[in-house]
Amino acid sequence: MQASAQIGVTGLAVMGRNLARNFARHGYTVALHNRTAARTHALVEEFGSEGTFVPTETAEEFVAALERPRRLMIMVKAGEATDAVIEEFAPLLESGDMIIDGGNAHFLDTRRREKALRERGIHFVGSGVSGGEEGALHGPSVMPGGSAESYAVLGPMLEAISAKVDGEPCCTHIGTDGAGHFVKMVHNGIEYADMQLIAEAYDLLRNVADYSPAQIAEVFRGWNKGRLNSYLIEITAEILAHTDAATGKPFVDIVRDAAEQKGTGRWTVQTALDVGSPATAIAQATFARVASSRTALRETYRAQAGGTEHPLRAHETERYVATVEQALYASKVIAYDQGWTMIRDAAEEFGWDIDLADVAAIWRGGCIIRAAFLDRIRAAYTGDATLPSLLSEPEFADEIAKAQVSWREVIASAARRGIPVPAFSAALAYFDTLSADRLPAALIQGQRDFFGAHTYHRTDRDGAFHTRWAETGRPEVEA
Amino acid sequence: MQASAQIGVTGLAVMGRNLARNFARHGYTVALHNRTAARTHALVEEFGSEGTFVPTETAEEFVAALERPRRLMIMVKAGEATDAVIEEFAPLLESGDMIIDGGNAHFLDTRRREKALRERGIHFVGSGVSGGEEGALHGPSVMPGGSAESYAVLGPMLEAISAKVDGEPCCTHIGTDGAGHFVKMVHNGIEYADMQLIAEAYDLLRNVADYSPAQIAEVFRGWNKGRLNSYLIEITAEILAHTDAATGKPFVDIVRDAAEQKGTGRWTVQTALDVGSPATAIAQATFARVASSRTALRETYRAQAGGTEHPLRAHETERYVATVEQALYASKVIAYDQGWTMIRDAAEEFGWDIDLADVAAIWRGGCIIRAAFLDRIRAAYTGDATLPSLLSEPEFADEIAKAQVSWREVIASAARRGIPVPAFSAALAYFDTLSADRLPAALIQGQRDFFGAHTYHRTDRDGAFHTRWAETGRPEVEA
Repeated sequence: MQASAQIGVTGLAVMGRNLARNFARHGYTVALHNRTAARTHALVEEFGSEGTFVPTETAEEFVAALERPRRLMIMVKAGEATDAVIEEFAPLLESGDMIIDGGNAHFLDTRRREKALRERGIHFVGSGVSGGEEGALHGPSVMPGGSAESYAVLGPMLEAISAKVDGEPCCTHIGTDGAGHFVKMVHNGIEYADMQLIAEAYDLLRNVADYSPAQIAEVFRGWNKGRLNSYLIEITAEILAHTDAATGKPFVDIVRDAAEQKGTGRWTVQTALDVGSPATAIAQATFARVASSRTALRETYRAQAGGTEHPLRAHETERYVATVEQALYASKVIAYDQGWTMIRDAAEEFGWDIDLADVAAIWRGGCIIRAAFLDRIRAAYTGDATLPSLLSEPEFADEIAKAQVSWREVIASAARRGIPVPAFSAALAYFDTLSADRLPAALIQGQRDFFGAHTYHRTDRDGAFHTRWAETGRPEVEA
Repeated sequence: MQASAQIGVTGLAVMGRNLARNFARHGYTVALHNRTAARTHALVEEFGSEGTFVPTETAEEFVAALERPRRLMIMVKAGEATDAVIEEFAPLLESGDMIIDGGNAHFLDTRRREKALRERGIHFVGSGVSGGEEGALHGPSVMPGGSAESYAVLGPMLEAISAKVDGEPCCTHIGTDGAGHFVKMVHNGIEYADMQLIAEAYDLLRNVADYSPAQIAEVFRGWNKGRLNSYLIEITAEILAHTDAATGKPFVDIVRDAAEQKGTGRWTVQTALDVGSPATAIAQATFARVASSRTALRETYRAQAGGTEHPLRAHETERYVATVEQALYASKVIAYDQGWTMIRDAAEEFGWDIDLADVAAIWRGGCIIRAAFLDRIRAAYTGDATLPSLLSEPEFADEIAKAQVSWREVIASAARRGIPVPAFSAALAYFDTLSADRLPAALIQGQRDFFGAHTYHRTDRDGAFHTRWAETGRPEVEA
């Protein structure tokens, strides 16, 4: 066996297989390995003509097939399987070799693995790979973490196989250790929020404007030509226009309305709380999926709500569609702002040097949230890398200012009509919370001091204070 | 040293000291131990007349002072300190002895510790203790987990020192292993939601009705005579009526409006996601505290929001106060319902047999969320232990039905005026989500199938399906 392969892929289920083919199509010699060799041989048989593959059967053969420094990509189920594969291969590697984990690992696992392998002289590159099986084959958005040293060697290959937008690769070195998997997780959290916001907009058009799914598909096609232009809006139009062959009904009406969540949305919300980041729209989107699947609760609550507004009359619907577009856009800006805020917060907490403009740039292609909109976010952070929020950028602030009346109107009307808009409402509440001159959090601090002597700060001087609530005159003491 | 003490307390900071005194005041002989003996002797010197204390200096002396089976309560900082103390004492104990952890441990830590100690023949009782230092001394709400066997021995003592309501102790055996600490965590999560809802109601009365804090204190005093009667409403009135001596301003206006959160709210939300429980009002309350403390974000967003409704005129305010009461009450019922749902979900997941009526019963006294309202919840679950939700109980359902118009009106109006109501909105969205006949989650399932082949279920037949979106005619295949 000659050490001739520039990269090896172990784990040849659909994602691994397609990434291996993608590398081969870009001229790289790709060593292949799978727990059961049949899959390895099937890949070569079916796609061998696409490039140069080196099929191997044992771990030793696989490692021997790789040029040094070895680049070994593992594409197995996140969790224990990843640790098992690492333990299988790490003893066969030498100092300077690289293991790339392209699965959906939790970034804290990636931090742990990177540290352990670094102590053994091996680079561990936890890399987010977005875009599903099609992306893996034709160009994903790639978010590698790990050392700068490993990126110098590995980066060009990952950039080669990544999606391209305006000639730029959708791949960049995100930051050290778990930064890549962290950013991929937030991508998915934003994706949850974006999908829920779209779903709420659909629900409003359906139930307030009384539009059919086909009519709403047309609305989304129109929106897709404007500032909302994005992959998710595009496929939403496709889905809404689709008719179920078996029943002749709109497809969306025959799908069971219980959404699943596979973990990354949940991780995003849990992590947001750990890093103190108020990712409320992402949280509400995740909980909305959870709630939709709670059959017994839905049976209990069913039909208890009743709206208090009349349906729209026909001549009002066109104006209403425009207000929903404003509400959707404003809520979307907030959801994305929450995502970027969370990346900044985590970068500070974990010591990552993340370029926030680059994150926007590499999400413009290959991934689920790809959108014209991301050019704007990129431009904002390119203009000022220290921007505290998208809303510190005048153009975004101006758009939100202009959307505000419609945004408020849509949410007020949904509340009156009994149409659930958890993510729209969370986005608006976030905007109103952060915009407020004074928050009732002051009262909460008073309550905490009253029942738990937790102390409070004053607006007019420094220090921590406690009021002796039980004593006459309620004296204040410095704590 | 004679083994004469029925219970020992190690860790004599304020909570431990007050619990020790509480045991002594109830006639128990209490062995005392602290890392630094000075604190032990100070307690005896200051409070020795309250009962029988056995001060000890070493771990061996402490253990020797306890009657068998030994009951050793540890009151140290949750986390590593708890593990350290357990490791200090466990080797000195014998089979059948009990360690009680009265700190705010994470229930998963309690599960781990219980399992490890069970294997060594020692009962580990993770026990929630609510009510702060005053409660610890005069009667807390006590939520012990652990084995039924340990409760048979320990229960009477914990019941003796607990708060009493109508002669009943606010203490019951919650369930095995971590059940006690879990239920205490949810108590705190509900507390977060209740406090935030009260804060939002205050904010509305302040900014929509243009009431002064003193006027709002009067409103809360009135509410405290009705169905909202509770400790939190009572102290809110006290706080709002308080004038800052230094400035002559309302106290609530001189407190810095950045709320702190100490971990249990965060744990509740994170755990809700792990057990698939849509605790959205608790989540929004927790995030509202987080957002209030984000100074730089608040500076960025400040004054960007602007409401679109005129202030109320004087003659409208009285009616408005009544609608806010309805909104607060309805939102509160939802928040509590989310808490109980979460307890039920966790009981199922972790194999706990938790009596949901008992949980309401022991929160009626001693703890922060104590309220008349809990009698109603207790009655509901006493009537039917399998109640899927508080809203399956006709009286609650009826109240919510009657509150609905006002609830919707308050939230719609807050949206239009730019007043942040994240928890009110989350509660209403929860109600509207679960009440909906059809949710747009169907569209989300369509999107997930489109971009990730995640499959969907149909409303009209069983099985998992995938539409081949890229193919002509978009054929549906059974997955």
